[in-house]
Amino acid sequence: MINMQNSLRTFGRRTLSQSRLLSKVKLTADKYQISRGDYATISETDRTELLSMVNGKGLEGIENLDGYNTDWMNTVRGQSSLVLRPQTTEQMSKILKYCNENKIAVNPQGGNTGLVGGSNPVFDEVIISTSLMNQVEDVDPVSGILVAQAGCVLDDLNQKLSDYKLMMPLDLGAKGSCQLGGNLSTNAGGLRLLRYGSLRGTVLGVEAVLADGTIIDALQTLRKDNTGYDLKQLFLGSEGTLGIITKASILCAPLPNSVNVAYVSLETFDHVREVFKAARSQLGEILSAFEFVDEDCLDTLKDNLSLEPPVDKTPFTVVIETHGSNRDHDQEKLELFLEYLMENEMIVNGTVAEDSKKVGDIWQLRERMAEALQHDGYVYKYDVSIPLKHFYDLVEDMRERLGDKALRCVGYGHVGDSNLHLNVTTSEYSEEVNNLIEPFIYEWVASKRGSISAEHGIGFKKTNYLHFSKSNEAIDQMKLLKNLFDPNNILNPYKVLPQ
Amino acid sequence: MINMQNSLRTFGRRTLSQSRLLSKVKLTADKYQISRGDYATISETDRTELLSMVNGKGLEGIENLDGYNTDWMNTVRGQSSLVLRPQTTEQMSKILKYCNENKIAVNPQGGNTGLVGGSNPVFDEVIISTSLMNQVEDVDPVSGILVAQAGCVLDDLNQKLSDYKLMMPLDLGAKGSCQLGGNLSTNAGGLRLLRYGSLRGTVLGVEAVLADGTIIDALQTLRKDNTGYDLKQLFLGSEGTLGIITKASILCAPLPNSVNVAYVSLETFDHVREVFKAARSQLGEILSAFEFVDEDCLDTLKDNLSLEPPVDKTPFTVVIETHGSNRDHDQEKLELFLEYLMENEMIVNGTVAEDSKKVGDIWQLRERMAEALQHDGYVYKYDVSIPLKHFYDLVEDMRERLGDKALRCVGYGHVGDSNLHLNVTTSEYSEEVNNLIEPFIYEWVASKRGSISAEHGIGFKKTNYLHFSKSNEAIDQMKLLKNLFDPNNILNPYKVLPQ
Repeated sequence: MINMQNSLRTFGRRTLSQSRLLSKVKLTADKYQISRGDYATISETDRTELLSMVNGKGLEGIENLDGYNTDWMNTVRGQSSLVLRPQTTEQMSKILKYCNENKIAVNPQGGNTGLVGGSNPVFDEVIISTSLMNQVEDVDPVSGILVAQAGCVLDDLNQKLSDYKLMMPLDLGAKGSCQLGGNLSTNAGGLRLLRYGSLRGTVLGVEAVLADGTIIDALQTLRKDNTGYDLKQLFLGSEGTLGIITKASILCAPLPNSVNVAYVSLETFDHVREVFKAARSQLGEILSAFEFVDEDCLDTLKDNLSLEPPVDKTPFTVVIETHGSNRDHDQEKLELFLEYLMENEMIVNGTVAEDSKKVGDIWQLRERMAEALQHDGYVYKYDVSIPLKHFYDLVEDMRERLGDKALRCVGYGHVGDSNLHLNVTTSEYSEEVNNLIEPFIYEWVASKRGSISAEHGIGFKKTNYLHFSKSNEAIDQMKLLKNLFDPNNILNPYKVLPQ
Repeated sequence: MINMQNSLRTFGRRTLSQSRLLSKVKLTADKYQISRGDYATISETDRTELLSMVNGKGLEGIENLDGYNTDWMNTVRGQSSLVLRPQTTEQMSKILKYCNENKIAVNPQGGNTGLVGGSNPVFDEVIISTSLMNQVEDVDPVSGILVAQAGCVLDDLNQKLSDYKLMMPLDLGAKGSCQLGGNLSTNAGGLRLLRYGSLRGTVLGVEAVLADGTIIDALQTLRKDNTGYDLKQLFLGSEGTLGIITKASILCAPLPNSVNVAYVSLETFDHVREVFKAARSQLGEILSAFEFVDEDCLDTLKDNLSLEPPVDKTPFTVVIETHGSNRDHDQEKLELFLEYLMENEMIVNGTVAEDSKKVGDIWQLRERMAEALQHDGYVYKYDVSIPLKHFYDLVEDMRERLGDKALRCVGYGHVGDSNLHLNVTTSEYSEEVNNLIEPFIYEWVASKRGSISAEHGIGFKKTNYLHFSKSNEAIDQMKLLKNLFDPNNILNPYKVLPQ
């Protein structure tokens, strides 16, 4: 089993000492200067009614809800005074029916590990947490299909699946806290999309509750099912604005018999590209991840987490992982591949890990990047898709643009998916720095026909930039769909669609 | 390259002698006794206008359009007197705008290889053929992403892609005629979904024209793009009822360095299941197809196409294919696997093919099944998903139910996807036999929580059975979506949704 080092972050599960700090986070409403929608303010009657629907499983009082109102990066803060924690689909249905009839806005929340402010309220939306919907309903060992409630934590699912020699087809840094429903509603990508494909293909069925409380049972557990429109796709990636996912069935991947990780250091990004091309050809079907970090990332890991790279650092580092069924074959492929890279002077140095401890140590250098950056103070996070030929140019252009106004400007991410994470840090939030980055970065990405959000979604923070990646006609259709599914606009308002 | 034997069928491209026969096919309107919708009948002015929009590239006269009005199996026949063959998206847009404003119903048609009457008109709908939209716009050798017009034939795309050591991520028997747009609008599955995943994951972008002529450019070419609702999914699998796909971008698979095919004969379906489980575990990441045919299939191939199996026949035959990057590794895995099957008495006999001629010969036995059955006269085709534990029971139950009223009742299909093709033949269409099969088969499948259409779609023939696989709430949402996208219901009427 790929028992990777689980990072120490526990997003959304803050300790008391942390939550005391949170109230310093600026209110989203003030920071972004937007107006509250025309929603009802919940009355005492509403509060009593709603809490009774979840058998009292709720939390009250804005002063107690910092961990729900604020994102883990301390960049947005809402003002909700009520969290509801339903345990069943029927409870979810009752809540939404009531809120829809009374025009009460709601904010669906999973593990609250999102990076674009999509999982926190903006004003006083009622938070509906899926945390108590955490039951695994079925694992079929022959087909490899899992059926589970939306609140299951990704890592917990992997634990359960390992008994069946299976694993989830997605993996991401936040796995210790993020929930299945959140993964699906943000169409999470992560580290191994390259190998196991996107959720659009691996999610076989979804149960979701619409704004008016209607339960849509599209919880098929079949690999092939062409019976009419594929409604579940509407709930994947729509970030809780068209319905709330309550259950899902997902095609899991077999747990590999053999896992190998190579860490290689390179001089230029051209070499990174060449090594990627060679990996696809020579490692072929066993290649499961191809990730990179730049030199500034290694410095951040050292400065902020005292993590040292296993070999001398160079401008670029690549982590290559293989998953396979035959250990001897996999090792032979990897050895031949690394020899080829050395002979052709594509890499400077490297090391290979086969045992799970060493595999975990190497993965830390990639997986704990988000955590490491957070120690600088404020992080401006961007997650873009750019064709590989322009991929790293953005980091260099941004670094030049920001000069000494930023503490750091680093690039890392999923080379195999053309997905760059560009991160800028300052000791505290600076509007000047923010304005230097945006909309410059979106214009830059759009000019290369990239995506302004590869995997993080639009959430709250990127709604005004949606048009850089979507045509006007497409945005019009999105608005029509939103109006069809949620005519009162109660589901996760201020998110995804431009105001 | 897996240069598989291309079957002789040329669906939708009939010779004159064949089309003379076609007029004997009963009109769909009579056979199914349904009423024409409230659409305009095209006037001479309409005809002139529409033909001018495609620069005269059309066909006129019901007597000349048998190949368009009728499906290749001779089971449905429409009465269209006009085929339009646009070459550009702009032409498609003009046609639809005009038809929508004048309430003229249209029938989008690709290669006309469908199996559920979805690609033929029911009454006098104007046929819009994508056949002349056959340009490949781009192949990116680094990312492996193809951008092409909807009318490209699947096999032609593979020819083109082979120059780049790439191949399409889907393969199906009709590849010599079926078109990309039709593949996408029916969400075609085929032989290698097991390995390369569904189109829901591999299609990265779509350009489509809505009923009112609006062009939706969602032609992204990025593996990761989470910017708002994934509109392209609405056009995949909706069989031309929500819009007409004009272009698509698709993530192609690397052409494998090594292809192996094993043909094994087995005594029972329990052995088929056991062999599948062993294949997934031992062949792992190189397994690319796992197909089966029953003994009656082998008889049909012999009787109707004079094709002989390579070893003595047994009740079940399985074709196992591997695609891999390293010939030695693949062959070693396959040899060890086959030894294991023999030692454990899971198979009776078998043969392995490595060169492309022998690989093609074996694949014929699976790929030409549809063609072989057609020679019996009339074919009642069913395409269902059933959990593997009940998989073959349906064929046995059906055989017993039909007794000597049918010529044959055979089962074959994609074991790896739990996808059974059940086919019944008679010398000519018999309502008695039809009524013995339906709705029995749908009730049977629904009782096992299967899908009444795994990959063929709903088309015209299965609309009344949709409820066996979709909940009422889901069908209600489908209707709302249809009304949103096509309020005049001009796009492929009488299809997908129940009347």
